[in-house]
Amino acid sequence: MNELRSAELGSDHGRDAGVETLDLWDVGDVVHELAQIRRHWRSTNARHVEHGAKGFPSRVRLAKIAEELSSALFPLRLGPDFVRQANEDTFITQTLQIAASRLHAQLRLELAYADEIESPLADQRATEIVVAFLQALPNLRRLLDLDIQAAFRGDPAARSIDEVLICYPGLLAIIHHRLAHTLYLMGAPLVARIISEISHGGTGIDIHPGAQIGKGFFIDHGTGVVIGETAVIGDNVRIYQGVTLGAKNFPTEADGALIKSLPRHPIIENDVVIYAGATILGRVTIGAGSEIGGNVWITHDIPPLSQVMQAREQNHLIRQARQQGITRSEFN
Amino acid sequence: MNELRSAELGSDHGRDAGVETLDLWDVGDVVHELAQIRRHWRSTNARHVEHGAKGFPSRVRLAKIAEELSSALFPLRLGPDFVRQANEDTFITQTLQIAASRLHAQLRLELAYADEIESPLADQRATEIVVAFLQALPNLRRLLDLDIQAAFRGDPAARSIDEVLICYPGLLAIIHHRLAHTLYLMGAPLVARIISEISHGGTGIDIHPGAQIGKGFFIDHGTGVVIGETAVIGDNVRIYQGVTLGAKNFPTEADGALIKSLPRHPIIENDVVIYAGATILGRVTIGAGSEIGGNVWITHDIPPLSQVMQAREQNHLIRQARQQGITRSEFN
Amino acid sequence: MNELRSAELGSDHGRDAGVETLDLWDVGDVVHELAQIRRHWRSTNARHVEHGAKGFPSRVRLAKIAEELSSALFPLRLGPDFVRQANEDTFITQTLQIAASRLHAQLRLELAYADEIESPLADQRATEIVVAFLQALPNLRRLLDLDIQAAFRGDPAARSIDEVLICYPGLLAIIHHRLAHTLYLMGAPLVARIISEISHGGTGIDIHPGAQIGKGFFIDHGTGVVIGETAVIGDNVRIYQGVTLGAKNFPTEADGALIKSLPRHPIIENDVVIYAGATILGRVTIGAGSEIGGNVWITHDIPPLSQVMQAREQNHLIRQARQQGITRSEFN
Repeated sequence: MNELRSAELGSDHGRDAGVETLDLWDVGDVVHELAQIRRHWRSTNARHVEHGAKGFPSRVRLAKIAEELSSALFPLRLGPDFVRQANEDTFITQTLQIAASRLHAQLRLELAYADEIESPLADQRATEIVVAFLQALPNLRRLLDLDIQAAFRGDPAARSIDEVLICYPGLLAIIHHRLAHTLYLMGAPLVARIISEISHGGTGIDIHPGAQIGKGFFIDHGTGVVIGETAVIGDNVRIYQGVTLGAKNFPTEADGALIKSLPRHPIIENDVVIYAGATILGRVTIGAGSEIGGNVWITHDIPPLSQVMQAREQNHLIRQARQQGITRSEFN
Repeated sequence: MNELRSAELGSDHGRDAGVETLDLWDVGDVVHELAQIRRHWRSTNARHVEHGAKGFPSRVRLAKIAEELSSALFPLRLGPDFVRQANEDTFITQTLQIAASRLHAQLRLELAYADEIESPLADQRATEIVVAFLQALPNLRRLLDLDIQAAFRGDPAARSIDEVLICYPGLLAIIHHRLAHTLYLMGAPLVARIISEISHGGTGIDIHPGAQIGKGFFIDHGTGVVIGETAVIGDNVRIYQGVTLGAKNFPTEADGALIKSLPRHPIIENDVVIYAGATILGRVTIGAGSEIGGNVWITHDIPPLSQVMQAREQNHLIRQARQQGITRSEFN
Repeated sequence: MNELRSAELGSDHGRDAGVETLDLWDVGDVVHELAQIRRHWRSTNARHVEHGAKGFPSRVRLAKIAEELSSALFPLRLGPDFVRQANEDTFITQTLQIAASRLHAQLRLELAYADEIESPLADQRATEIVVAFLQALPNLRRLLDLDIQAAFRGDPAARSIDEVLICYPGLLAIIHHRLAHTLYLMGAPLVARIISEISHGGTGIDIHPGAQIGKGFFIDHGTGVVIGETAVIGDNVRIYQGVTLGAKNFPTEADGALIKSLPRHPIIENDVVIYAGATILGRVTIGAGSEIGGNVWITHDIPPLSQVMQAREQNHLIRQARQQGITRSEFN
């Protein structure tokens, strides 16, 4: 066990001798060794995959920006509680101006990082994206209103539209997704991905910003949902917690490297419902109007208007056990 | 692809001409269009489902209140680290007074929102609820102590009661649930639901505040657990991550609208254990003392003292593959 | 229903009489009753399982420490955005000094809580652990670099190493795990567990700090993953969301108490891939190079180079339903 510890912790972990003279503040050697590791890392990973010392969009800043954009879209519900109907427009104006300016800075970092354009061009390109993005917001609000209505219609526990907007993680996820997907299409996939992951962290719902999602989309409960980069989802689709729309296997180059960005996730047609824990993998199509039962595993096309479910008798082995004659408990 | 972009982003996204003259701060048109959308939305959704411009309980404020209540219940563990045994009572007194006052404000917002009572009545009704809620706290603490003991007994990895209280998301979830369920029964379902969703966001455990849960309840790991509004759970029940106690289908009115609040979730009797990923749907009863294995899908009653599990031989197709004769690796 | 309420809320909930005279600030009786409950609790749970009034490591403080350690390991990516290549070493020096001092305080709390050593000894022992831990950091960074590369190679959606580091919850989880596991081995299992649960809350990935994990480990998506205390994972293992490496049943003492810390979780050999939602329980071995399909349930050994999957034809019951002849929708 001591050897295991030594092996796991590095041989020089200094626990056996002279510890009483050690100083918590003496971190010079560690700092030096970490610097060497970073230098080595940057020199060997520079091509394609790592841009080491360059600036990078910030998760903390983008969380703030996403919050501002959400509150501009739904000021009385997702905004701070000083917002009233009388000052909504003032609040939105100020919030959008601040968010636009901050988003511009993050986009410039992404564009400069990607290194495909010069710095003044990055500045102008970031401005173009922000302006187009702002102009897309009213349409996003219209789409989100349809999502909210779909959630209200789809869940018997929902008492009001406002409850859906405030309480449902599925709504939080689709707000972030529609913002992120717009930025993804406009050429900011990294900023988009960070916004998606902010939502993933808060809701347990993982939607890649590349996924195309139609109107009136509703995710109930949502924890554990995964929707991959090239998934295509039609209108009026409803999915439950733990559903995966994933890839089956990944085509590789001759050298074994993965080919990135090929269509590899499912197509879900209009009016499909997918229940908790179902896993659908690969570029398969789930036909319009189908219902996919919980916990099933699908890797082939499903025709329209199908019902797919785990076969009951093959999945349960019920044994009356241990003792007989117990009566129902009386707690209910 | 350009058409797709135009379609997705709205036709007027301004990317093709004159972008260099665009000003990040010129958001007037967007603000105006958003205002039109909100007006239209409020005029068409006013009846029953949306109360548009009215005040609404705040998620941020309720998160703070829930934290205060938790720290008043377990001051040395969930409170700030200046609390010592010597000042526990002082800390609790101050914390409960502040939390009561803040909770009162949130309850008044809910009651006024629901619009069933006049404003002075809402004020008095909120006071009644807060007072009754405060008086219910000692009993909640007693119930939570039983939950903590159940967790300690139920998990071999638990080293102490305190570790359970600090580390286990299942405890965080049941603390929030018992607070929320009490408020739900006292006539504040919206404040209750928001408290539940705060816990859901932090733990991945989604318990509707309407669910009735008996004594000594333990959720281990917990991510992905869903317990529906009308579920009834007996005493000494233990469930694991990814378990769903959900609805099977939703009865609808003649016009197709969902009938809200009907019993539609499972009844779990005393002393039942439900393992990871099991899905139990509909108003079915799982009999006392049963064990439900992982990843099963149940939509019918299970008699007491049953064991239910995926049938092993029907669920695995094992192929010895690709090459033979490999030896065990030696990493362990 | 009124009886149910009384039963659930305690009989003395004061809702029926005199509420208009009640004062929100009058919490004396509640505070007194809570004090009695705490006294009773501490007197009955003192042995082994509860250390009641003692100090205890703080979740809030450890969250801050874990953040500082992460930013010292990856300053340009996980640090604040004023860090540049020019001031990296200065930043790391300061950050490690602060983190070391704070960690020392938390470790002292754990050691004093466990009550096995005297207070001056606790102080010295905490110093020893912090010094050994700092010296282990360069090796941890090397291990994490291998994890990052495994993630980049393993996911076609990854565009750069930096995107992996910033966006992937699996990376956040493995950073926290490798920090926590090191502290666990050095004799601080409680501080370690709290760090793990901080990561669990943020990512939905629940790795007990006791789990042994080899090189180049990658968790994709990750929500719902559970890896138990005595799990052993080899090199180049990849797992997906919802995978459980759990215990099957728990050996008990003669008196029915659980025996803690026995090996009871799976051994996963090198080069294994485990797809979404698979559940592997008990001290079984998954042989090197095997692929475990999604949603399967395994409680026995799997030989090397196996493929295990749900049998397709036994799990789907497909009925062409309700009406025929619908054509594919045209949304894609």
